[in-house]
Amino acid sequence: MKLKSGVLTLLGMLLAAPALLHGQTANVVHYTTTIDNVKYLFATAEPVARLKSGDILDTNTLDCFGNALKKPGDPLSMVKGDNPLAGPFFVEGAEPGDTLAVKILDLEVDGDTGIGAFAPGFGAINETNYTPMLHPPLPERVWFYPIDHATNTAVFKALDSDFAVKIPLHPFFGCIGVAPANGEARSSVVPAEFGGNMDSPEARVGNTVYFPVNVKGGLFYIGDGHAAMGDGEVAGTAIEVPLKARVQLSVIKGRTIAWPRFENDHAIMTVGAYRPLDDALRIAFTELVHWIHQDYGLSELDAYELLSQVARIHLNEMVDPNYVVVASIEKKYLPAKKK
Amino acid sequence: MKLKSGVLTLLGMLLAAPALLHGQTANVVHYTTTIDNVKYLFATAEPVARLKSGDILDTNTLDCFGNALKKPGDPLSMVKGDNPLAGPFFVEGAEPGDTLAVKILDLEVDGDTGIGAFAPGFGAINETNYTPMLHPPLPERVWFYPIDHATNTAVFKALDSDFAVKIPLHPFFGCIGVAPANGEARSSVVPAEFGGNMDSPEARVGNTVYFPVNVKGGLFYIGDGHAAMGDGEVAGTAIEVPLKARVQLSVIKGRTIAWPRFENDHAIMTVGAYRPLDDALRIAFTELVHWIHQDYGLSELDAYELLSQVARIHLNEMVDPNYVVVASIEKKYLPAKKK
Amino acid sequence: MKLKSGVLTLLGMLLAAPALLHGQTANVVHYTTTIDNVKYLFATAEPVARLKSGDILDTNTLDCFGNALKKPGDPLSMVKGDNPLAGPFFVEGAEPGDTLAVKILDLEVDGDTGIGAFAPGFGAINETNYTPMLHPPLPERVWFYPIDHATNTAVFKALDSDFAVKIPLHPFFGCIGVAPANGEARSSVVPAEFGGNMDSPEARVGNTVYFPVNVKGGLFYIGDGHAAMGDGEVAGTAIEVPLKARVQLSVIKGRTIAWPRFENDHAIMTVGAYRPLDDALRIAFTELVHWIHQDYGLSELDAYELLSQVARIHLNEMVDPNYVVVASIEKKYLPAKKK
Amino acid sequence: MKLKSGVLTLLGMLLAAPALLHGQTANVVHYTTTIDNVKYLFATAEPVARLKSGDILDTNTLDCFGNALKKPGDPLSMVKGDNPLAGPFFVEGAEPGDTLAVKILDLEVDGDTGIGAFAPGFGAINETNYTPMLHPPLPERVWFYPIDHATNTAVFKALDSDFAVKIPLHPFFGCIGVAPANGEARSSVVPAEFGGNMDSPEARVGNTVYFPVNVKGGLFYIGDGHAAMGDGEVAGTAIEVPLKARVQLSVIKGRTIAWPRFENDHAIMTVGAYRPLDDALRIAFTELVHWIHQDYGLSELDAYELLSQVARIHLNEMVDPNYVVVASIEKKYLPAKKK
Repeated sequence: MKLKSGVLTLLGMLLAAPALLHGQTANVVHYTTTIDNVKYLFATAEPVARLKSGDILDTNTLDCFGNALKKPGDPLSMVKGDNPLAGPFFVEGAEPGDTLAVKILDLEVDGDTGIGAFAPGFGAINETNYTPMLHPPLPERVWFYPIDHATNTAVFKALDSDFAVKIPLHPFFGCIGVAPANGEARSSVVPAEFGGNMDSPEARVGNTVYFPVNVKGGLFYIGDGHAAMGDGEVAGTAIEVPLKARVQLSVIKGRTIAWPRFENDHAIMTVGAYRPLDDALRIAFTELVHWIHQDYGLSELDAYELLSQVARIHLNEMVDPNYVVVASIEKKYLPAKKK
Repeated sequence: MKLKSGVLTLLGMLLAAPALLHGQTANVVHYTTTIDNVKYLFATAEPVARLKSGDILDTNTLDCFGNALKKPGDPLSMVKGDNPLAGPFFVEGAEPGDTLAVKILDLEVDGDTGIGAFAPGFGAINETNYTPMLHPPLPERVWFYPIDHATNTAVFKALDSDFAVKIPLHPFFGCIGVAPANGEARSSVVPAEFGGNMDSPEARVGNTVYFPVNVKGGLFYIGDGHAAMGDGEVAGTAIEVPLKARVQLSVIKGRTIAWPRFENDHAIMTVGAYRPLDDALRIAFTELVHWIHQDYGLSELDAYELLSQVARIHLNEMVDPNYVVVASIEKKYLPAKKK
Repeated sequence: MKLKSGVLTLLGMLLAAPALLHGQTANVVHYTTTIDNVKYLFATAEPVARLKSGDILDTNTLDCFGNALKKPGDPLSMVKGDNPLAGPFFVEGAEPGDTLAVKILDLEVDGDTGIGAFAPGFGAINETNYTPMLHPPLPERVWFYPIDHATNTAVFKALDSDFAVKIPLHPFFGCIGVAPANGEARSSVVPAEFGGNMDSPEARVGNTVYFPVNVKGGLFYIGDGHAAMGDGEVAGTAIEVPLKARVQLSVIKGRTIAWPRFENDHAIMTVGAYRPLDDALRIAFTELVHWIHQDYGLSELDAYELLSQVARIHLNEMVDPNYVVVASIEKKYLPAKKK
Repeated sequence: MKLKSGVLTLLGMLLAAPALLHGQTANVVHYTTTIDNVKYLFATAEPVARLKSGDILDTNTLDCFGNALKKPGDPLSMVKGDNPLAGPFFVEGAEPGDTLAVKILDLEVDGDTGIGAFAPGFGAINETNYTPMLHPPLPERVWFYPIDHATNTAVFKALDSDFAVKIPLHPFFGCIGVAPANGEARSSVVPAEFGGNMDSPEARVGNTVYFPVNVKGGLFYIGDGHAAMGDGEVAGTAIEVPLKARVQLSVIKGRTIAWPRFENDHAIMTVGAYRPLDDALRIAFTELVHWIHQDYGLSELDAYELLSQVARIHLNEMVDPNYVVVASIEKKYLPAKKK
């Protein structure tokens, strides 16, 4: 493992992320992720770096294949493990019962090619490990997406015909989360209460994601960068890419949440992760009603009715061991936040 | 039953819906819907009017409560039947195996008040008839939404506090469909292969919706107008309103589809209606892969992969006897349509 | 349509079904079912015979293929319609809000061959209409089961090897039910609140099945005889056979139920029919808790706990448009029934 | 931690478990489980004892409450952790890719009282953590079941009335499993591929349960004894008891399975553990088709059809984080096992 950390000067910070500072300096911790220091579990493990609440983490992530696929013809069997993670990062002062706020400041695709793959046994409309059938599996396929940084697009090229089309990029982390509660260790393909492989496009620049702190230091992990993804991630992958990233980690003391949440200036968003989708939705919406009731003061039934008229549902993925749904409401529809 | 029909002059048509004509005249059939001529079933029944393929239907619909609730304090027990429907409308030349195309030309909220209601036993995050639990039901509640036609908004007023907020209108039909196949008759609260209570905001001006023709004449029904609705319609209703509407009904001979579809200049969209949501999604996405494969020529696996990167999922509702999902892809991502 | 009815003498009755009489005479109505008088819908339709409450219906049913498959090699395309039904039978005095009790007195396999079939798009572990996937369908297959009346067994003969094995018979009606509520008409492949294609082995001699009466006369239907069936009916069919049957139809005035129920001397049983199975189970168990609470006087929480220790779940089928579960408790675990 | 192990004499073994020996001696390893040495995770952890393949483990387990509830009035808040486990037990020679066979030789209720509890947020027909709703939770309740060892029964006593009834005992392990694959650590309330909290009454004397070996030594755990349980364990608990147990642990080299399986002289049984129940069933049945095909030589479609006629489904529980189903077929319906 290699660990590099440092402190940016005030000038450097202002140049790099001026919106953050509100007149204050912020430490930046640098960490370089390689195939030799990645993890494949969201778990309690030895931290690779320690940050103070409010520090900025400047790091990189490998793609979900550990950067193992290089060129057309490379088979999925070359992949050593799915969703290698950077981390864990220890945030000082974070204790069980607190909330960890992760503000995503900057994301950049770290390479010139993205990869999409159909892996037999994984996907939304084919037989899988958890929806098995007697049909022979569909064949493995890998698509390479050239990335044009100038136009911020990737190119889909059909394998069975000549068609090609540009797709706009909107990079985000497929994996983002913390160590689970109760000593559990979960594979980096799983999304759950601790976040994890949520495949939420909401994990993008400009949004803050909140996680329950389950262990001392929170133990934050990221990985599985996506350059773009359709709702549902139906064939099983996004346009998979390495990323360079800057995120700010802050501890909110004494605030306890049960499931991950997102927030930006315009909206509050809750995550539900389970199967079937019906239950993922129930989780996201009960969380959203509770959030509105507690922080914005509407009664639960008024909140329920208001959501019936203005809620948004973003079905992130229906391919991982749990399915992920984000329910949201724009703040313009809410009363002023309670003090 | 009252039936009025007529033929607009070319001039009237040009004024009313000039974009439609493409240099041709179109008949307009007027029909006035009242509580005395509504239906509560999608079924094979005596037509209330007959149209030629390409004719325009100019009619109105009652709200889902049959316009029975007039003022705060009116209880749901005043409602005689849910989702009264206008129709059925017979389209000449439509035979089983054809497709009925319904282009929605104009929709207008027909009144100054919308209604939202929480009915015990109905909703996404409370016990219901089909997800029953031992908990006592939550209490019935009715919200009235004043509608401002000038600003095209409705006002949500909390029942348990002083909060009020404006909601932009985007009117659509909650119920739109045809007589089911195989002689079935289904309640107007059910969405299924024949359309029905899809609660799809896609049933709005500018979109065309396609239905399988299951019986001679197709037998088209509409109702359950919504002035606005959040994704999922989670508390069980939208802002329920009467509507005035103009739709153009056309028969596509020899084109057979299994589930409803939407289309506009920018996108193709498929409907899945079942429980759990997992299966509704599987229906919508297999339909979309097949549509792309058949009409746009991509192989099924290429279509699957492309959807994984650019598909959109709109979860319409998770409260009716079947749950409804719309999957879509923008046409700009597709090859040219096959001739 | 052919309709034959008559009244058995007391002597005939005593010989035919002596356990029934309890010292009283009972009328027997005979009705002969043929491919020319079957129905394919549970619906409000013209009755084929009328019975008084307490009368015995003596009739026969065709197999689910309408007796169309005669010999190995006959394809499923020879079948005109699935699950042809005998009926409807009008029971005098039955009004909406009442319960129809159907006591199954006698069932006999009406032939020497049973049939099992795998139909593409139908089954528990292959792609189906409502759980569609991109896999090509598995191939159609038909198995013929010679029936030995002397040993009350059928013989399974493998198609792809030499193996054969005897299976004990336990005949029952796959389809049994009444006209649905609210004017609905449902295909004879559907199980729901009105009974229908429940594929419940509980519909056997010695059991009484209760249905809600939704329309005047109840309008009772039967069909889809099964000589034997595994739990779940996983490949989509049982050992399908024509049956000869005698059932007694009685009206229980003023007793209202929401879903079908079974009862015999030893147990009470409730039916849940929906998707996913989770919801079918919730329906069956809430119904069972309510039944115990209302008729046997335990509090709902005591009933819930007692079921947690002694309930039985019989998963009837997971292949039809709704899945069917029967939950039951033996009467020996219950308090005396309330008067 | 306390560890006691020893070797029984041939005479002792013959007296204790003569059916086991087949003319051979078998070591018996004794281990005493207490609240101070239990675990709450199925995970890779330091073994508490090591056995050779074929050795017998003689141990005891605490009830699911850690034996914390002693008398009526004791609240669930006295419970320190759910499902304390004995173990892990290391079996020499077990390597990833092997199968661990656990033959259950003897089970005895270790005490005079069993406990059933309704815990808010847990159960099949009330709101839970993963099927949350807006209803207030139902109230906590605890039932004590006196156990009569002479008649092998427990007594249910209603809390809200005077009713009491005897329930026959059929003791089994609620928790039985091994360390998960891929470094995961799972809470002892979870059932999954590694076994775990399956709540399978099949984990009883006379049955052998097979687990995939995921880590060196297998790392076997047991706990959560049940004196009796209804199908579905619907209110969330069985009659919870401490147990004394003897099980024989054997390694089957080079045999790889994906999910737990049960077997006895009469039947083969497969486990599916997931949500919704639909998917748990699909897992169990595809596993069973594969088992029949591989070991008994029927083609997959013949096996599918045969199961459609004679399979049994035992729905073990629908309350844990995953739901558990056992699918089975009696061996009398199968061809001779392939050599």
